[in-house]
Amino acid sequence: MDTTGFRAHVPVRASIEVSDIQGASLVLCCIKSNDTENAAAVMAPFVGPDAIVLSLQNGVDNAKRLHAQLLRTVYPAVVYVAAEMVGPGHLKHHGRGELVVGPSAMSTDMREDFASAGVPVHVSDNVVGELWAKLILNCAYNAISAITKLPYGLLFEKEGARDLMRLVVRECEAVARRDSITVPGDSWQGVERIAATMSGQFSSTAQDLMRGRRSEIDHLNGYIVRRGKSLAIDTPVNQTLYSIVKLLESAFALREHGH
Amino acid sequence: MDTTGFRAHVPVRASIEVSDIQGASLVLCCIKSNDTENAAAVMAPFVGPDAIVLSLQNGVDNAKRLHAQLLRTVYPAVVYVAAEMVGPGHLKHHGRGELVVGPSAMSTDMREDFASAGVPVHVSDNVVGELWAKLILNCAYNAISAITKLPYGLLFEKEGARDLMRLVVRECEAVARRDSITVPGDSWQGVERIAATMSGQFSSTAQDLMRGRRSEIDHLNGYIVRRGKSLAIDTPVNQTLYSIVKLLESAFALREHGH
Repeated sequence: MDTTGFRAHVPVRASIEVSDIQGASLVLCCIKSNDTENAAAVMAPFVGPDAIVLSLQNGVDNAKRLHAQLLRTVYPAVVYVAAEMVGPGHLKHHGRGELVVGPSAMSTDMREDFASAGVPVHVSDNVVGELWAKLILNCAYNAISAITKLPYGLLFEKEGARDLMRLVVRECEAVARRDSITVPGDSWQGVERIAATMSGQFSSTAQDLMRGRRSEIDHLNGYIVRRGKSLAIDTPVNQTLYSIVKLLESAFALREHGH
Repeated sequence: MDTTGFRAHVPVRASIEVSDIQGASLVLCCIKSNDTENAAAVMAPFVGPDAIVLSLQNGVDNAKRLHAQLLRTVYPAVVYVAAEMVGPGHLKHHGRGELVVGPSAMSTDMREDFASAGVPVHVSDNVVGELWAKLILNCAYNAISAITKLPYGLLFEKEGARDLMRLVVRECEAVARRDSITVPGDSWQGVERIAATMSGQFSSTAQDLMRGRRSEIDHLNGYIVRRGKSLAIDTPVNQTLYSIVKLLESAFALREHGH
């Protein structure tokens, strides 16, 4: 594990058996948004009645989607961390690492446990707005970083990229407003902060495409497009970025198949 | 030379000395749209008074730009051909190969010379509209083919790409309309025909990016964006595609510089 603070082997108790979550008091659901329903379905029989379930996922509707399968309260948590898997079992940490949760999502004790593990937990009474704030940042950076294969810092240096991100943010804000979401803070300042605090980071979408994996774009720019459609808000820039990422996802298969 | 009709070595009298155009009765200007002014400036002293100058270029304003330097009538010609340089002196022809010119651009004799060389020349009294018709096709395909590295046929098979191209076409048509251009034919049918007749073709923009060269995107989607701005027509999809191609053009340099 290479973190910004230390470099060490960190032994963890791990298992790929879903039944091993039985008896856990805290379940951190960190799966990709594409797999939410499937994961919830296999987890459901093993989540104890007193377990706290947190969704540490991108996108704004995962807690709701987990709830639909688990039939219990699921607390959304907003995750701000820049990290990547640079090899098997080898995690590289590029910066930050804090959570935002709702007032009832964690006891004070639990928050202290997180804090002592180096994970500050902020409490917000507008977690949905906080999820949207992160969604907007993801919409601004993820697709563009994936399409251009550029990290956040270099992207933000380019006027063309900044102009594009400004348009993305504006479309997202229009959808949020129509959806009665109060997005905390200034989204554009958030975009600037990302460039400064995670300058070397490639988006998770970029990392997924580089590995030939399906990305979460359906739950990022794709969500804005779908939500915009149902609220009668035009989102052409998000739609273009979304469509291109979907084409890039299928491009390898297309080329293989076509030639 | 590999054409769809034959494969042969074709000897040509060629020169890289611009002064060798002296005495030519027909000057076919086939340079990239980025180089129009520079090329015209160096050609100017050597273009004879009776020479016919044709612009065989993408974009809609090259004849005007050549005229501004050469101070003589320059006839625009619309070129429909799918071809690529697969090696030094090695031209591969994928399909088509006809020209569209205005009524006065070529004598009947000259048209017959072209026809006997296998290049049909169509005469149109709306060449500017014809240039726009091709511009719209280029806007629909060039950037998307370059960004996804997919050829026209495979692109058109994907619903996401077709939806995107439809939005591009619609924005271009709105700009053309406001610019009082009558675009001949049905642009969307043109898009369909390209997929059918040039299915294996990668756009010139794709070919430029693959070779690390500056593309003509400033004169394709970039032109629509600029023209749209001055006519107060929003072109967010063209702008997104344009900005991404510009980012991809600079991405290599950025990566070199940044790391």
